[in-house]
Amino acid sequence: MSAAQNGHAAEPASAERPLRAVALGGGHGLQASLAALRQVTSDITAVVTVADDGGSSGRLRRELGMLPPGDLRKALAVLSTADDSGRLWSQVFEHRFGGNGALAGHAVGNLLLAGLLDVLGDPVAVLDETCRLLGVQGRVLPMSAAPVDMEADVVGLEEDRRAIRTIRGQVAIASTPGRVKEIRLFATNGQREKPIATPEAVRAVFDADVVLLGPGSWFTSVLPHLMVPELREALVATQAHRIVVLNLVPQPGETAGFSPEQHLDVLSQHAPQLRVDAVLADADSVPTPDRLRAAAAELGAQTLLDQVATPTEPGRHEPGALAACLAAALERRMDWWR
Amino acid sequence: MSAAQNGHAAEPASAERPLRAVALGGGHGLQASLAALRQVTSDITAVVTVADDGGSSGRLRRELGMLPPGDLRKALAVLSTADDSGRLWSQVFEHRFGGNGALAGHAVGNLLLAGLLDVLGDPVAVLDETCRLLGVQGRVLPMSAAPVDMEADVVGLEEDRRAIRTIRGQVAIASTPGRVKEIRLFATNGQREKPIATPEAVRAVFDADVVLLGPGSWFTSVLPHLMVPELREALVATQAHRIVVLNLVPQPGETAGFSPEQHLDVLSQHAPQLRVDAVLADADSVPTPDRLRAAAAELGAQTLLDQVATPTEPGRHEPGALAACLAAALERRMDWWR
Repeated sequence: MSAAQNGHAAEPASAERPLRAVALGGGHGLQASLAALRQVTSDITAVVTVADDGGSSGRLRRELGMLPPGDLRKALAVLSTADDSGRLWSQVFEHRFGGNGALAGHAVGNLLLAGLLDVLGDPVAVLDETCRLLGVQGRVLPMSAAPVDMEADVVGLEEDRRAIRTIRGQVAIASTPGRVKEIRLFATNGQREKPIATPEAVRAVFDADVVLLGPGSWFTSVLPHLMVPELREALVATQAHRIVVLNLVPQPGETAGFSPEQHLDVLSQHAPQLRVDAVLADADSVPTPDRLRAAAAELGAQTLLDQVATPTEPGRHEPGALAACLAAALERRMDWWR
Repeated sequence: MSAAQNGHAAEPASAERPLRAVALGGGHGLQASLAALRQVTSDITAVVTVADDGGSSGRLRRELGMLPPGDLRKALAVLSTADDSGRLWSQVFEHRFGGNGALAGHAVGNLLLAGLLDVLGDPVAVLDETCRLLGVQGRVLPMSAAPVDMEADVVGLEEDRRAIRTIRGQVAIASTPGRVKEIRLFATNGQREKPIATPEAVRAVFDADVVLLGPGSWFTSVLPHLMVPELREALVATQAHRIVVLNLVPQPGETAGFSPEQHLDVLSQHAPQLRVDAVLADADSVPTPDRLRAAAAELGAQTLLDQVATPTEPGRHEPGALAACLAAALERRMDWWR
């Protein structure tokens, strides 16, 4: 399905409107890309994974059968505006109950999202309403309107190091001591059906000027988007500039020991048709730049290396630096357009 | 302490500003007086009991040591405006989680108030912020900024029908099969200290044109306000018109078999200095009007009997009818002023 077939011919970028950006991911990685994008444009849509089965989100998902809210909540928090009201509600949203009772560890925002979902039903309406409360500039959408289950083929867990075991659940996959080879996603109905993309998320990808994949937990926050068929097709067909932002350090567990170029390899394995325009990485986090450039080129992408880590927290992207790097990647794209 | 001593000389009522009304109570009774007041004026302050130890409120109070939020939430819900946003948030606020898990039975609004209290600390700031969210016209205040414990002397629980037993906790008192003789309130610190009034509630009583006591569970929602010393003193000293609204039916448990005039007797026993300007009651709920008039006169009050019950729900005040009755009581006051 092409953009034109889908009826979403991308309106050309112009000085009339801000750059339309879509960031796909989950957790702290998505927070990093959103924090950087805020410095580049005001028109941001976050498309968020809904496979979480741990912590407060996992408890709510099991108890109420709802979308795991934690990654959505984190995206909302980083996009909320800095006025007094938005700041207070963001703080309350992120606040976790203490103690050792039934509520201990629950984020208030997760409970509020649960209540809104119970009342309104439609998660997109819930998130739009929450955006108003928090003064979010932009939009936060779940990649699927229903929770999804994740499983992964993992090697290195048995005597025979090449024996494949299937691991189920996002937390188990994220923390496996083995090596993840492939992930699969299913609608949470026990039928092993493919998850269905949120139509608004598909439309946002088609309508975007720039689409960001990563950074984030590669198998459990970044690749899941490519396992939702309509979302993968939109990412393949969109006329947006596709940028992959690599992690600063390998994730303990799911990508322990993965090189930057291996991150691109697994991306390609999970979505062979996907072309990428630019790969952004932190210069100090890339031991073999030539290999990364080669892997990027196979995806059709230019490679931009820059200092994008926070000096005091080497695992965390510095939003201003990442924003500058994104702007540079878009500038090259503009040069190419001219 | 007089109004003047307290520095709160009441500004005379005028056409320049709406009537300033304060309603004291808790639960459904307070909702009835607030619903009626909304039809009389836009300047309403609800002063709410904080002795609840049952249900979602009791669980939160025990788990987090917080003010029981349920009665506050109910007052907020009835004062919220009917615009789309206020209506949605009121609905979410009142929504209770289902199922049989850790959240089952919790009202979403209670959890949100708990989160706000954790973050902001000051319950008055929390309630003012919540009023903004729900589009509340007016203000909701706790009678005390800290939860209070309630105990009651009850007769009729033993062989010797006159033997007095002390019953502790709002739920136990509200449902006692015995006859409540007297209630006492203590700060929840195990020291049996008197509860401290919220200064904003004391000021509201002094600044009011009209103060409403009742309807509601007499011993557990109405009288508690008189057991908070500064609040009782304010009610005694204020220049506001003091109106007592009687219940339509005796409460099973705490006031089973109580006549309307007995409600006034126990009010007087708990606050001997309190004078009342008007007693409103439903004409069909008063078997012996002369006795009620006599009991009211002892408090200094005129008695107004009117049809104020909802025809289809005899235990529930009809807001429009109660509003008309309130307006009539205030009209008499105006006549007296002229």
